[in-house]
Amino acid sequence: MSSSAVAFARQNQPRFLDELKALLRIPSISTLPEHKGDCRRAAESLLAELKRMGMEHGRLIEGAGHPLVYADWLHAVGKPTVLLYGHYDVQPADPLEEWVTPPFEPTERNGNLYARGAADDKGQVMAQVKALDSLLASGRALPVNVRVLYEGEEEVGGEAIASYIASKPADLRADFALVSDTEMFAPGLPTLCVGLRGMIYTEIEVRGARTDLHSGVYGGAAPNAFVSLAQILAKLKDEDGHILIPGFYDGIIPPSPEELAAWRSLPFDEEQYRTAEVGAKQLVGEASYSVLERTWARPTLDVHGIPGGFTGAGAKTVIPAKAVAKVSMRLVPGMAPAKTFALYKGYVEQIAPAGVQVEVRLLHTGDPCIVPVDNPYIQAATRALREVWGKDTVFIRSGGSIPVVGDFSRHLGLPSVMMGFGLPDDNLHAPNEKFHLKNYALGIESVIRFLEEASR
Amino acid sequence: MSSSAVAFARQNQPRFLDELKALLRIPSISTLPEHKGDCRRAAESLLAELKRMGMEHGRLIEGAGHPLVYADWLHAVGKPTVLLYGHYDVQPADPLEEWVTPPFEPTERNGNLYARGAADDKGQVMAQVKALDSLLASGRALPVNVRVLYEGEEEVGGEAIASYIASKPADLRADFALVSDTEMFAPGLPTLCVGLRGMIYTEIEVRGARTDLHSGVYGGAAPNAFVSLAQILAKLKDEDGHILIPGFYDGIIPPSPEELAAWRSLPFDEEQYRTAEVGAKQLVGEASYSVLERTWARPTLDVHGIPGGFTGAGAKTVIPAKAVAKVSMRLVPGMAPAKTFALYKGYVEQIAPAGVQVEVRLLHTGDPCIVPVDNPYIQAATRALREVWGKDTVFIRSGGSIPVVGDFSRHLGLPSVMMGFGLPDDNLHAPNEKFHLKNYALGIESVIRFLEEASR
Repeated sequence: MSSSAVAFARQNQPRFLDELKALLRIPSISTLPEHKGDCRRAAESLLAELKRMGMEHGRLIEGAGHPLVYADWLHAVGKPTVLLYGHYDVQPADPLEEWVTPPFEPTERNGNLYARGAADDKGQVMAQVKALDSLLASGRALPVNVRVLYEGEEEVGGEAIASYIASKPADLRADFALVSDTEMFAPGLPTLCVGLRGMIYTEIEVRGARTDLHSGVYGGAAPNAFVSLAQILAKLKDEDGHILIPGFYDGIIPPSPEELAAWRSLPFDEEQYRTAEVGAKQLVGEASYSVLERTWARPTLDVHGIPGGFTGAGAKTVIPAKAVAKVSMRLVPGMAPAKTFALYKGYVEQIAPAGVQVEVRLLHTGDPCIVPVDNPYIQAATRALREVWGKDTVFIRSGGSIPVVGDFSRHLGLPSVMMGFGLPDDNLHAPNEKFHLKNYALGIESVIRFLEEASR
Repeated sequence: MSSSAVAFARQNQPRFLDELKALLRIPSISTLPEHKGDCRRAAESLLAELKRMGMEHGRLIEGAGHPLVYADWLHAVGKPTVLLYGHYDVQPADPLEEWVTPPFEPTERNGNLYARGAADDKGQVMAQVKALDSLLASGRALPVNVRVLYEGEEEVGGEAIASYIASKPADLRADFALVSDTEMFAPGLPTLCVGLRGMIYTEIEVRGARTDLHSGVYGGAAPNAFVSLAQILAKLKDEDGHILIPGFYDGIIPPSPEELAAWRSLPFDEEQYRTAEVGAKQLVGEASYSVLERTWARPTLDVHGIPGGFTGAGAKTVIPAKAVAKVSMRLVPGMAPAKTFALYKGYVEQIAPAGVQVEVRLLHTGDPCIVPVDNPYIQAATRALREVWGKDTVFIRSGGSIPVVGDFSRHLGLPSVMMGFGLPDDNLHAPNEKFHLKNYALGIESVIRFLEEASR
């Protein structure tokens, strides 16, 4: 099946790559206040490009944080409407010293493009944008009605887009969403993600003495915020990966026997995963579940850092007055963020050791979600992917959280097609993040084909 | 009993205070490499003052780190020789925002002098220096032979002075040491410290995955260095303050029944200590021991900070590859640092959870020590203190560590008279450190009287 848009995309690939690099040079780190201006620059740059291509009603939607980018093209009479989603913000780049080339100087190496945000999510956003560019430039029309909504707070909880979606504005009316923020199961294997874990991100703050104290003079009688915090954390999850919060696992809906059987047939090499991807001497977690079940269909709990206390070089003999643990939990279908947080908070307050005061804070949440594979747009996506990649699509889940998918479903009634082109070793959220150059090119073609298939 | 030196000291108190302030303005933070030059400036300033006063053979003794300051006056024929010890280095001043006035701008307020190092230990060093100044200026001689040895690495383990003492140099030959780095049990209550806890300061480094990983994608299968570290820390000490390292308590020599009886008669108000000094909702530790026993005669374990991971504002969903805990233990008579470290290291390696690699490092150590109260120089000190303060001396211990006291004993055979003028609420190692102005003045007089009594 020929497509003039695909031909256009192939001819213009060098330009499309330059345009992605330009976006990657903007350090739009949403969690760091000093990069607020960069986030706006990234949004303005996307908006200008959408307008240039012929998208209409282009504007920034302002809220308390980083702006949303909106544009549409609604002239495909009688055709369905798709809402395209991605995010232009990125994670912090630290630790900087582990990057081979600077995180905001995109560099081609071994068939990949290295930069913070290359795969998560600017490369995928640009795959959408350049698909629209190719369709509009080659045919002066789109095969379906298209609304574009890009956010700049995905890495910090997505408050702006969540409240905008919750307001159910007329300009988000659509039939389905195309969410480009997931990955392929293996190189060259077309993949649709049909399930996501939700999450709650929290902080536990422990306060002992009024101020930092000398550990010689007071050691043995004064509460130590770090010791108490470690005792609390050790009671959250045992060494077998089992979470100890009472009621935590209640109500979980397990995958169907068919889904589990399909997962068992995926090309997954646990030893390869352990050595090449994770790089640990041993994988951990619930031994009675496979690795894919543990990361896709089981909840978990992680600690991300424990700010406070003395962290410099050498020795400081202080009993810190305060310690904070950043703790998040991943949730699976059947679990609700609000209920899980309440169970967790109550448990932490109950197990707090004597002598300290504990405060448990909720930073943000995301619902878990599942999309049925017999949805017509999922079916259209599988036809498009077979055309571009020459293979049958595999249906996977992701252990990560895309809260907006839950919001699209809950507030707008939209099913999401999660068609992503990242690879498992793309180093998301870590040093040396990359995007496979071939996946960028075929990602553009996949979006073109998908919009064409969705119009049938 | 009149003393022309005491009269001189009283007349010159304003100048002596200005000279202390000048020393406090030098931010001689020994643990921070960027303050190396300040440590040298503090040493040079003390050396210049000792020479100006008439002390002889003044010089800096250079090692790998911050220099020692040495000077002597050895013309008291037939009289004993005292080795005066103190330290010119200070702790870091963070958290800076909690200081009422800047840590290196000494400020008088409510009868106190506020500055980092005011009590620990520059105020006490200057009490010695100004006692010598008063004796030399008023009488052109000292009542005993005096050697001065000040170090600049007390807060970082005291390696330079330890190796210098271990070399048993001729210029440290003496009959006893006067160590001015302790505190009074209560305001106006003359106090000699006759026991110190030792310590080991360590780091536990836990490594899980090769690099930081996305907690959504890998959570549930990848080891989390912070979770594993918390599990290890929680197994070191239970919530009743009992240390769980097998063999840790073996061989401890408890205080005598007489010493315990004397401690019970000290003016100690546990509720006042809890609220005014510690500022915690409850004291912690081994319930079968009194607070003084817990802090003076029982070993303990504290965590000072857990560098690594994500410590910024907001949320970063990362599984950190590495976590480091700074952990120290205080040791009491009967415990040896090397043996304790070996027990601890073996235990940590044994309890390390699956999936992570653990390294246990020893940063530095100090021996516990006890001085007999019938020592003649201890007796001379009690006579001097009664003269100046009008009260009988109380004999206490300190929960802190002064490794040099152990070194004086082991290598030079010197008993140490630990006569200190800090107060329990001086905020050592914490924001708003202070030195009581009256204690500075009477501290100078106490040292003058002590040297006079020691010559009898």
